[in-house]
Amino acid sequence: MTTTDRHELRDLSVEECWTLLGTRTLGRIAWTTADGPVVLPVNYGLAGETVWIRTSAYSALVREADQSRVAVEVDLVDEATRTGWSVLVRGTAHVRFPRDGRATPPEVETWPAGPRPLWVVVDPREVTGRRLGPAR
Amino acid sequence: MTTTDRHELRDLSVEECWTLLGTRTLGRIAWTTADGPVVLPVNYGLAGETVWIRTSAYSALVREADQSRVAVEVDLVDEATRTGWSVLVRGTAHVRFPRDGRATPPEVETWPAGPRPLWVVVDPREVTGRRLGPAR
Repeated sequence: MTTTDRHELRDLSVEECWTLLGTRTLGRIAWTTADGPVVLPVNYGLAGETVWIRTSAYSALVREADQSRVAVEVDLVDEATRTGWSVLVRGTAHVRFPRDGRATPPEVETWPAGPRPLWVVVDPREVTGRRLGPAR
Repeated sequence: MTTTDRHELRDLSVEECWTLLGTRTLGRIAWTTADGPVVLPVNYGLAGETVWIRTSAYSALVREADQSRVAVEVDLVDEATRTGWSVLVRGTAHVRFPRDGRATPPEVETWPAGPRPLWVVVDPREVTGRRLGPAR
């Protein structure tokens, strides 16, 4: 096999998607504005089958995405072999304040400096994923 | 410095964004559907200050995103040092057929097997980016 082989895309099961989501801590969240979609990298964690994102109180995400449809994309690719996977969680975002008593947040370390006191919780409606690898 | 240092986010100039976009070939495109945004990994190339994505004739991207607002996100992160950058190109997508004579596509290798005869060209309205690194 050479690095220029082009591999097959195959769909992942929902169970495989959740397993893969649990192996990563950096994803990207997309939401829609009047000027079209926005995509930004975020640190996330899982609590059951919900995705939790820590954010600052003044973020565009909080201002624009609360109670809106969003998508969280997570992937891992190996550029040398051109293989990898991607998972897409589509659902509704809800801004939650710390200790609102409704659920226990997962442990999420945020990479940028500065306070990240709020949570954006994504309740999934659909979870899909694909793996790019050698044909079986 | 330890890996648990939390770094500063700083905005990139538009020129820095285009330079960084030119160093990568894998990004993610987001578009909006009636059920909210979708984000999928794509191979891309640049021709001037437009982003070109190769896709199959029957892709959801072609069906749903032609003449629509889209966003292309490209990033590179080093998980060990928790540093990296991300660039977001927001604009309008146009589906183009091969050799329509209006512009010369860049070289874009696609990683998945199968034909990718169409192009989706993103004309940018806004290019923004951020770098996460040590404070200067």
